[in-house]
Amino acid sequence: MDDGTDVQALQRSLDGLLRQITPIDDQAVAAARERSSRLAKPPGSLGQLESLGAQLAGIAQACPPPVPQTPTVIVVAADHGVHAQGVSDWPQTVTTAMVDIVIAGRAAVNAIASTIGARVTLVDIGTRNPPVRTIETTTADDRDVTFVDARIRDGSGDISHEHAMTPEQCMRAIVTGADIAIRHIDAGTDLIALGDLGIGNTTVSACLIAALTGQEPAAVTGDGANMDDRRRGRKIEVVTAALQRHGHDRRPLRLLASMGGLEHAALVGAMLGAASRRVPVVLDGVTVNAAALVAARLSPPVVGYMIAGHRSTEPGATAALAELGLTPLIELQLRLGEGTGAVLAIPMVAAAANVLGGMALLSDVS
Amino acid sequence: MDDGTDVQALQRSLDGLLRQITPIDDQAVAAARERSSRLAKPPGSLGQLESLGAQLAGIAQACPPPVPQTPTVIVVAADHGVHAQGVSDWPQTVTTAMVDIVIAGRAAVNAIASTIGARVTLVDIGTRNPPVRTIETTTADDRDVTFVDARIRDGSGDISHEHAMTPEQCMRAIVTGADIAIRHIDAGTDLIALGDLGIGNTTVSACLIAALTGQEPAAVTGDGANMDDRRRGRKIEVVTAALQRHGHDRRPLRLLASMGGLEHAALVGAMLGAASRRVPVVLDGVTVNAAALVAARLSPPVVGYMIAGHRSTEPGATAALAELGLTPLIELQLRLGEGTGAVLAIPMVAAAANVLGGMALLSDVS
Repeated sequence: MDDGTDVQALQRSLDGLLRQITPIDDQAVAAARERSSRLAKPPGSLGQLESLGAQLAGIAQACPPPVPQTPTVIVVAADHGVHAQGVSDWPQTVTTAMVDIVIAGRAAVNAIASTIGARVTLVDIGTRNPPVRTIETTTADDRDVTFVDARIRDGSGDISHEHAMTPEQCMRAIVTGADIAIRHIDAGTDLIALGDLGIGNTTVSACLIAALTGQEPAAVTGDGANMDDRRRGRKIEVVTAALQRHGHDRRPLRLLASMGGLEHAALVGAMLGAASRRVPVVLDGVTVNAAALVAARLSPPVVGYMIAGHRSTEPGATAALAELGLTPLIELQLRLGEGTGAVLAIPMVAAAANVLGGMALLSDVS
Repeated sequence: MDDGTDVQALQRSLDGLLRQITPIDDQAVAAARERSSRLAKPPGSLGQLESLGAQLAGIAQACPPPVPQTPTVIVVAADHGVHAQGVSDWPQTVTTAMVDIVIAGRAAVNAIASTIGARVTLVDIGTRNPPVRTIETTTADDRDVTFVDARIRDGSGDISHEHAMTPEQCMRAIVTGADIAIRHIDAGTDLIALGDLGIGNTTVSACLIAALTGQEPAAVTGDGANMDDRRRGRKIEVVTAALQRHGHDRRPLRLLASMGGLEHAALVGAMLGAASRRVPVVLDGVTVNAAALVAARLSPPVVGYMIAGHRSTEPGATAALAELGLTPLIELQLRLGEGTGAVLAIPMVAAAANVLGGMALLSDVS
């Protein structure tokens, strides 16, 4: 599928995107901290909501920041050749089935998004098989789901003996993810939550996290969606071997293409796209966290636009969040993915903004 | 204000209320756990949301449980005679000012409740001075605030040398709290979050928590709303002295009347009232947690209806939640009160119910 692609055009798109990303606004952050200290409450008594409010002010370059009203969770799906190495209890058909369920509005992320008032967009960036759409669609109007067919290839290569994708495919996935995020923002989305879907992707995430944090494979490899810990030893072997094969060149695009996943690449792009438009990005679990590490290497200021929605039980999530310097909003022992933990955190983000703008000041009282 | 009160009538009301509280439905809990295991996701991957969903099923005696649609946060305000002992940086006029701000829709709890879609009811169960309503009201329609004047006395007695209230006043505050909760439920509220407001109330909460958990005063006494830890030593002295004076009789109503607060008593009543109607109760921080300990002693099954919204930074909150066996949904280093942490948790409660009812089953897929 690379035929006819202009690699240099993709590189130019990516470079252009990176140039548009600037650090969040320190002055707005300081103004929000100062305003927070004047709100009608004991200083600091809203804890992490106060630092979150300041971050939102920095992102929006405004204090008080606007309250996110139209959040969208973008769930990116792909398959992984490394599945052949026995890293998962689940067959790859489950990726297709789960894509179908999300499109039908009946996955966990749909149930949570409809509770919170977020829209769902499912992006197929490279599953092994296109969605078959056999699941009966819910009739609930509020389960508004958009499907984006952006398939770049039928799953990634098996990183145990080949590259996950070509550099062109990797760049194309990044640029596609950015385009999708920007298109949503242009259509009114003012907060993007990111999720992932793809059997085998926690193995790939562990590879990226080990490479980018310097931690040992065993320290960042968990059970993923497996039912128990019987496959974890095999996953660690596969991660170790992939790192030996591909991990010498630590440039982020090389790592991503050699041992990442198509959804990781598209998620990187979505983060860059959102940051380029100064829109906050709420991260889900370990796969999104792994992508965030790559995005941060490509563009350090992008971290200022990231909000850690939750801490997954996957050990790699904790390693990645620590490397990024992000404190998660939620710790509910979630390990589902799909963006579930990111979407659950959206009301806290909205509340943090609303507190800064909506509360009385001490000077109003005395 | 006890003139004409029929103590025996109050006791009969309370006894009647307690008789209406039955344990949550074990069969519905089991059905929810079983259903959760058949949802289209890896078993257990939604962590604490799954146990919360099962609890909601048990409360509603139905699986899947109804999704809370009309939550109300009931914020109970009172003053405390022990304020005279120098336990707070803030004058008692701040209680009145904060009541005014809540009524005007401009406190932190209003900003968060409007974000989440919860209504706010402010109950004055015994502040030192009635609200003066000098704060300009917000014009936002969604900041729907109800004010309930249920003043029983002008603040409680100083527990360092007298009882906080008479047994009659204590029972009246409980029955009033229950009536208010039940009235809200009859009017459509299907989830009650509870918050508190009152300068000095973390000192009183520490007394109740120390008495009911057996922990030392120093282990359960924090800074409350104070700016720093300079008053904490004084608070510990006051708590220690109050326990020596009033703590010998550990019957819950005696403890509550001798060294509790009027808002604690009304919060106990609200918990009992909600449980009597099988409606979930989301707890806020240390003052609501202290009241929950008293409610649990009066009626052990009431704990089944309680959801710990968050863990306050107050050490007494952790002690109380451990004694109750409750795991908080949120830990954001909040220590504001007003119900803020409880309201922030409401979307998680709704999501837990929605997941159980709205998700596809594995059998729908294969």
